[in-house]
Amino acid sequence: MSVNLKKIGFLGPKGTNTEEAAFQYLEMVPEKYELVPFNTVYDVIMAVDKKEIHEGIVPLENSIEGSVTQTLDLLADSDIKLKIKQEIDLPIFNYLLTNQKTRIEDIKEVFSHPHALAQCQHYLREHFQNITTINTASTGAAAELVSIDSEGKAAIASQQIGQDLGLKVLAKNINDYDSVTRFVVVAGKDHEPTGKDKTSLVFSGKKDRPGVLFDLLGELAKREINLTKIESRPRKKVLGDYLFFIDLEGHRKDDKVAEALKEIGQKASLFKILGSYPVSQK
Amino acid sequence: MSVNLKKIGFLGPKGTNTEEAAFQYLEMVPEKYELVPFNTVYDVIMAVDKKEIHEGIVPLENSIEGSVTQTLDLLADSDIKLKIKQEIDLPIFNYLLTNQKTRIEDIKEVFSHPHALAQCQHYLREHFQNITTINTASTGAAAELVSIDSEGKAAIASQQIGQDLGLKVLAKNINDYDSVTRFVVVAGKDHEPTGKDKTSLVFSGKKDRPGVLFDLLGELAKREINLTKIESRPRKKVLGDYLFFIDLEGHRKDDKVAEALKEIGQKASLFKILGSYPVSQK
Repeated sequence: MSVNLKKIGFLGPKGTNTEEAAFQYLEMVPEKYELVPFNTVYDVIMAVDKKEIHEGIVPLENSIEGSVTQTLDLLADSDIKLKIKQEIDLPIFNYLLTNQKTRIEDIKEVFSHPHALAQCQHYLREHFQNITTINTASTGAAAELVSIDSEGKAAIASQQIGQDLGLKVLAKNINDYDSVTRFVVVAGKDHEPTGKDKTSLVFSGKKDRPGVLFDLLGELAKREINLTKIESRPRKKVLGDYLFFIDLEGHRKDDKVAEALKEIGQKASLFKILGSYPVSQK
Repeated sequence: MSVNLKKIGFLGPKGTNTEEAAFQYLEMVPEKYELVPFNTVYDVIMAVDKKEIHEGIVPLENSIEGSVTQTLDLLADSDIKLKIKQEIDLPIFNYLLTNQKTRIEDIKEVFSHPHALAQCQHYLREHFQNITTINTASTGAAAELVSIDSEGKAAIASQQIGQDLGLKVLAKNINDYDSVTRFVVVAGKDHEPTGKDKTSLVFSGKKDRPGVLFDLLGELAKREINLTKIESRPRKKVLGDYLFFIDLEGHRKDDKVAEALKEIGQKASLFKILGSYPVSQK
């Protein structure tokens, strides 16, 4: 009975990479969940925040669909109390798809989301001459388009979409390089320590104070805590002010991490721990 | 005679924000140039690198169209000798547009690029009930769509596109917050010092050596050189290796900046100065 299942929201629609990340997550957890698609990252996060759903899955980095800066901004918002409890790294494999009748030598136009087209530029340049690339709103929209009208047309999309629409695979894994999209599971609480964890945090520093970031990083360096990500973003409301998004190795309950975070919290004007969670095995 | 004009390439098509940035750039320079649209960031950058065109304009941060990570990756590539000679910060104002007959109370569907829809979510939630948002490949595609079939439909796009297509403005500046997209002009050489400059650089550090970023930032902090941006990205070819993109205040020919860059260059395994150029006045 689905009414009794806990609900996990994800950035929809069905067939997107976020749904694929959600399937991977379901394999990792013992409980059974019902997956619910939402239209926007905002809707997923607010539904978890209001406890309408149990957990939510949103893209965080390098995603083809979905606005990733929006996820960061919402997580940094001090009114939103959610924590990251899991990261999911999804390798992205692009397929060149067309319908069953069309042959590769007839392809004149390739349709896909601009980011997917960009990821396959070398492949397209090497294998086709005088091909036109045409942007679509999503990889799914491109696949649907060639499933209806495929004369001289191909789409770049996932294997899954191709299977669902009965398309023919012209070429597999045509990405110019390995591409991984990072998703996060957000919930009311983060993850308990597992011994191999990461912690995400955001803090602000003033641009006109030299070395503030340096001071803060010093707290990590002197405890030999590794960074795995750092990103600055201008803070919308305060000109000249920056937000720093940092991922570091270790759980916020680990002694040396807890110490460093306490020091950073005292030096930064804004400071929020976004959550501690196991390192992705991918 | 346009054949005698120097050519500037930009990420097209016409009507995109990159073209608007190109117009702004033309106002800043005394020379006359011919603007040439290209299909991809790669095509713009390679055309400058091969000297087929004089300069190129590509999005670097937070762009609605265009793949921004692609620009960073190409600039970081050691085979590409281009420098950034100018930054152009373009404020993005989103307009709600429809055709002349349609009224705001009839709007049931709003079309736009997913990033533009994300930027206007608060506005849409406050002013409409039960509205459906539909992703398009670009803001221009959304505007064209409503110019042809606008029953109950509106598009989010720039004022310029609305004017070009003869659309009616339902609402101005509907962004939830001020949004700025950063573009850069790339050329064979960067800019001479003006007294108010920035320098962009990329370097790599090993994840498993604690504090490498900290050491490098120390070179800046001890000379009181401000950072205005920092971003880490995984290095594609070497697992566990990171690229750091940094913007700092000052010109690479300024004494203290030159000293710091020399120190950083000796410590980093990969190091490339992407260029020094005047700080945007925006």
